Amino acid sequence: MIKAAIVGGSGYTGGELARLLCRHPKISLEAMTSRQNAGVKVSNVMSFLEGFVDLRFEERLRDGDYDLVFVAAPHGASMEVVPELLRRGLKVIDLSGDYRLSDATVYKKWYGLEHKDPQNLGRSVYGIPELFRERIAAADLLANPGCYPTCSALGLAPLFAKGLVEGHAIIDAKSGTSGAGQQPTPVTHHPACASQVTPYKVGTHRHAPEIQMVLERLAASDVDVVFSPHLLPIVRGMLCTSYARLKEPMDIGSIQLLYREYYHGKRFVRVVPGTPSIASVVGSNFCEIGVASAGKDTVVAMSAIDNLVKGGSGQAVQNANIMLGLEETSGLDFPGLGV
Amino acid sequence: MIKAAIVGGSGYTGGELARLLCRHPKISLEAMTSRQNAGVKVSNVMSFLEGFVDLRFEERLRDGDYDLVFVAAPHGASMEVVPELLRRGLKVIDLSGDYRLSDATVYKKWYGLEHKDPQNLGRSVYGIPELFRERIAAADLLANPGCYPTCSALGLAPLFAKGLVEGHAIIDAKSGTSGAGQQPTPVTHHPACASQVTPYKVGTHRHAPEIQMVLERLAASDVDVVFSPHLLPIVRGMLCTSYARLKEPMDIGSIQLLYREYYHGKRFVRVVPGTPSIASVVGSNFCEIGVASAGKDTVVAMSAIDNLVKGGSGQAVQNANIMLGLEETSGLDFPGLGV
Amino acid sequence: MIKAAIVGGSGYTGGELARLLCRHPKISLEAMTSRQNAGVKVSNVMSFLEGFVDLRFEERLRDGDYDLVFVAAPHGASMEVVPELLRRGLKVIDLSGDYRLSDATVYKKWYGLEHKDPQNLGRSVYGIPELFRERIAAADLLANPGCYPTCSALGLAPLFAKGLVEGHAIIDAKSGTSGAGQQPTPVTHHPACASQVTPYKVGTHRHAPEIQMVLERLAASDVDVVFSPHLLPIVRGMLCTSYARLKEPMDIGSIQLLYREYYHGKRFVRVVPGTPSIASVVGSNFCEIGVASAGKDTVVAMSAIDNLVKGGSGQAVQNANIMLGLEETSGLDFPGLGV
Amino acid sequence: MIKAAIVGGSGYTGGELARLLCRHPKISLEAMTSRQNAGVKVSNVMSFLEGFVDLRFEERLRDGDYDLVFVAAPHGASMEVVPELLRRGLKVIDLSGDYRLSDATVYKKWYGLEHKDPQNLGRSVYGIPELFRERIAAADLLANPGCYPTCSALGLAPLFAKGLVEGHAIIDAKSGTSGAGQQPTPVTHHPACASQVTPYKVGTHRHAPEIQMVLERLAASDVDVVFSPHLLPIVRGMLCTSYARLKEPMDIGSIQLLYREYYHGKRFVRVVPGTPSIASVVGSNFCEIGVASAGKDTVVAMSAIDNLVKGGSGQAVQNANIMLGLEETSGLDFPGLGV
Repeated sequence: MIKAAIVGGSGYTGGELARLLCRHPKISLEAMTSRQNAGVKVSNVMSFLEGFVDLRFEERLRDGDYDLVFVAAPHGASMEVVPELLRRGLKVIDLSGDYRLSDATVYKKWYGLEHKDPQNLGRSVYGIPELFRERIAAADLLANPGCYPTCSALGLAPLFAKGLVEGHAIIDAKSGTSGAGQQPTPVTHHPACASQVTPYKVGTHRHAPEIQMVLERLAASDVDVVFSPHLLPIVRGMLCTSYARLKEPMDIGSIQLLYREYYHGKRFVRVVPGTPSIASVVGSNFCEIGVASAGKDTVVAMSAIDNLVKGGSGQAVQNANIMLGLEETSGLDFPGLGV
Repeated sequence: MIKAAIVGGSGYTGGELARLLCRHPKISLEAMTSRQNAGVKVSNVMSFLEGFVDLRFEERLRDGDYDLVFVAAPHGASMEVVPELLRRGLKVIDLSGDYRLSDATVYKKWYGLEHKDPQNLGRSVYGIPELFRERIAAADLLANPGCYPTCSALGLAPLFAKGLVEGHAIIDAKSGTSGAGQQPTPVTHHPACASQVTPYKVGTHRHAPEIQMVLERLAASDVDVVFSPHLLPIVRGMLCTSYARLKEPMDIGSIQLLYREYYHGKRFVRVVPGTPSIASVVGSNFCEIGVASAGKDTVVAMSAIDNLVKGGSGQAVQNANIMLGLEETSGLDFPGLGV
Repeated sequence: MIKAAIVGGSGYTGGELARLLCRHPKISLEAMTSRQNAGVKVSNVMSFLEGFVDLRFEERLRDGDYDLVFVAAPHGASMEVVPELLRRGLKVIDLSGDYRLSDATVYKKWYGLEHKDPQNLGRSVYGIPELFRERIAAADLLANPGCYPTCSALGLAPLFAKGLVEGHAIIDAKSGTSGAGQQPTPVTHHPACASQVTPYKVGTHRHAPEIQMVLERLAASDVDVVFSPHLLPIVRGMLCTSYARLKEPMDIGSIQLLYREYYHGKRFVRVVPGTPSIASVVGSNFCEIGVASAGKDTVVAMSAIDNLVKGGSGQAVQNANIMLGLEETSGLDFPGLGV
Repeated sequence: MIKAAIVGGSGYTGGELARLLCRHPKISLEAMTSRQNAGVKVSNVMSFLEGFVDLRFEERLRDGDYDLVFVAAPHGASMEVVPELLRRGLKVIDLSGDYRLSDATVYKKWYGLEHKDPQNLGRSVYGIPELFRERIAAADLLANPGCYPTCSALGLAPLFAKGLVEGHAIIDAKSGTSGAGQQPTPVTHHPACASQVTPYKVGTHRHAPEIQMVLERLAASDVDVVFSPHLLPIVRGMLCTSYARLKEPMDIGSIQLLYREYYHGKRFVRVVPGTPSIASVVGSNFCEIGVASAGKDTVVAMSAIDNLVKGGSGQAVQNANIMLGLEETSGLDFPGLGV
């Protein structure tokens, strides 16, 4: 068994990693750290893990012969612990935003922080396996993508990779509240958000430059990204409705065919004839995509994921599998809830 | 007191009309018809109206000296009853889609029905008072707008009316399920829609040509409309996130100022500095609008209404007030729930 | 116009009072205080009040010739301000729990605080108008009841007042999250509560002794109260399902008749043949009650209110109307949303 | 591999069985029948099963060497197909109510139908493994329990089995809407149920006699059952808050200890110190139980399950494992979603 640890494990991302790893056939979860809950049994904090994770949260990662460390700390905190882990020779998968943007200046602009580990920015590999699989296998520092970039980029990738659309993308994203993390805030206070859909950080969200980076890499040219996230009154799941305009007329049947071909052989991406369903992917690592046309020349790409799985911990496990030479689907090969 | 009747009153729209009219200081609700519930006390079907509406549903509208009839029948059924009401000399407010599109050919294309009363299409007045107030006062047949066109057009109107944006609008609309009406369907079955946001009829929804008609009237030029409705897991309320691209650079502060000026003196439109809140308008006739910029040149207009009030029965009462020479806010001058 | 002020007005209760008072025909809202928002326009904090409440929050209540003050401060804080208001000769309606229990010892046991104004406990009148109307008219200090006691006592009152049931009541209560107030907490964090129903403080909630006090007053004998509150994933509205056992067999038709007679002439209580609906009362001051029998001798009383209206601010206005000699329904005579 | 089929597989129960069986290490799903969807690919109806279930729905079960058949047809339809399956020598797990009540007269009273297969009523074994494991291993016709009886009986079992409480139980049950099945109805129409909690069939629900049967079997004496089901505005999950009165005083610590001992070694029942969480069990076969005391002598047992898993298809697989001599947890040994 491969030995793994989770640093910063008491949030939703950490709990979700533990939920997935506890039934992984090849990876054994050996440690979880949490400053806040140090010394407490993991299953006392997360009752659903009782009988599956028999660990106590540790203050900090003990020495040990781990093969891989998942860092589930918030941005800003990750770049404080990652350098030391790399020095110890460990493979690292960072789930924060700290190692996603290749340029420290861009990082500072959007995150408002000076990057403390700029030398490792070039070393990090951005991990959406369906789009950038080749470099992931060789990575020792993997930047696990944000939920919004994963979902929207998978929805738009065939259009930009094949050069079919102009360099302008509008992403109207709707996310469940678990994406906001475990800390209560006025925005995620139930009376304030439960009978609403709440647009927030329109044009200013940190995932905008990350989406732009991915689309430009696919298109090999400039892309102007308009990103409007909305908070949905559901807990898990995300839908991105993304808009781009065709350079040349193309009927929707051909576009759908193109999508199916583009994702042929990608186990976790499912192209459906109609509109995608969040319920079909909740709890699983799947992304469901539907595509439609509207107006004169606009393509509407709709993509649904579970923000905590394919948009976070599940994709991290998928990346781990690739980095470790395991089956890409190992520990993730089960369907969503459906209902 | 002005005497009013509701034809087709047992659905959500009819109930909402009754909820508003029962406390209207100048209009008295004298009759409600329903084939399905003929003979039954209104308050037996809608317990919230007990003590407020002391009527029984009638099979069809009896003769009587009504001043105004609200037709809350579904499209297709409205155009069967409206001509007779007009012949009787009654003022009519039709809440269906039957008299909104001025062209019977366009009607047939989107509604799949031959129009049975094309001669009255030219007579009908499309009633968003904040945009087209002048003709409403003189109308005897008023086409009450759809919820999506009301919400999105109010959000985009200043941009198109002032000629600031290109002729392309993307409307990503999110509606509560009450907009789908009272009839249970697989789409509005709670287990199927409650943990999701469901895009539907993308590019093919009947409100698309209506939105196009309104924006083109405002812009006095062609507008390509991309309309993507989504079903939200809330009951009441709607948010439209609409996108248009500026012809010339303009800072967001100037745009917000333009919005405030454009809606100055319009009681039911509220321009807010940040993002609009559905909760602030639920139960009321208000529309709350916020505007932001994103990407290089895109304006994001966000507008929120209660789909059953400003998006339906409330706007119908507002139009009635204008047609009858009453205060425009009569019977509607109360705030939304807020929480 | 009667002049009123709200002390502690920036929470949900204060906002709801303002929502109701702004359209009250006889009471004028003259001031709202809030330490946190002192100096800020009320409508900047609560956009739904724009155009209805043209006030700024004040640090503390200025001198002025108010007729009535609503105290919407949290328990513990109320008893700090009420004595001074009474000394100024103002009528006071306190919406906290500070003046509901007549015994300072019981108060201390359940609230964990020494009561700072015990001399006024005897002066305060507990205000559920449908049950205890006679003393309210003469009150100068009115203790506005808790949401749970209002809802459950209205549901059970006929049974206990008529001596039909044994001295044991089980109240399984389900409340929307707005009852928890405006302050974000782990319990009302959307991801933690939105896909759940969460029992909390079973057997230990502060409303238990208040319910017991009311039922014992009605029964004129001891009542053992089992109170289990649950947090529902809705914002507004509350349902109490209450259980009591008949002393003598009685058919359900007779019990329903008894309920209708007991509440005959009480405008805000509606006894329905089947089960009550939260949607029918949301936004309004109504309580809807249904009653059923189950098992050998158990009566199941189901009662629904809007926790912020009949369970809080609406009942406060109803009490104010009675104290001021106005129509009891003044400013409250409109139906619930229905949908 | 053991070969299994699902008869009546296109509803929620059938889909959930397929979701669980597709990753079962020892059972292979060989066929699914559906009259409505005969000939259609299963994954075209249930997209979440694409890549996991490569079957088409069959009109009726073909001949074949199945070891076990799950009957997921509605009550009334089950007793039409079960006799033939038994004649073919197949082991049958029936998920409807047709074989749960041992007395055909009681069946007729509550289900309103003459039982068509009364001779097999005595042969059927009622399958809650944690309570009645011994007979399940030998069963060839297993009656899979209802969701409400499973949840409430697990919550109350230690009290009744140990003779600690009087023969009266009140079960205030709250269920997600998926329990109502896939067919749209006015009750599960989203606008009608999503902002509410709706009590229904209070005292008249078919699960009442089933709960009574289980509690009386545990207590070995008469139990008067008061059962009040409520429809919650969530999709998956159920909470039963159950009330019973102690014969003799007993402190809550001792009761909690008793619960932990009673369920010691039962993998799928988790006794927690506080209140149980639906989120902790959703998606899984676990039941989470908390217990509290209230009033003078009342015990409040709170139990949470996923109504589609432990309350239906998961328990059916658990029963299948026992009947087939497999590990009881086979194919079910994974945690709930937690969030």
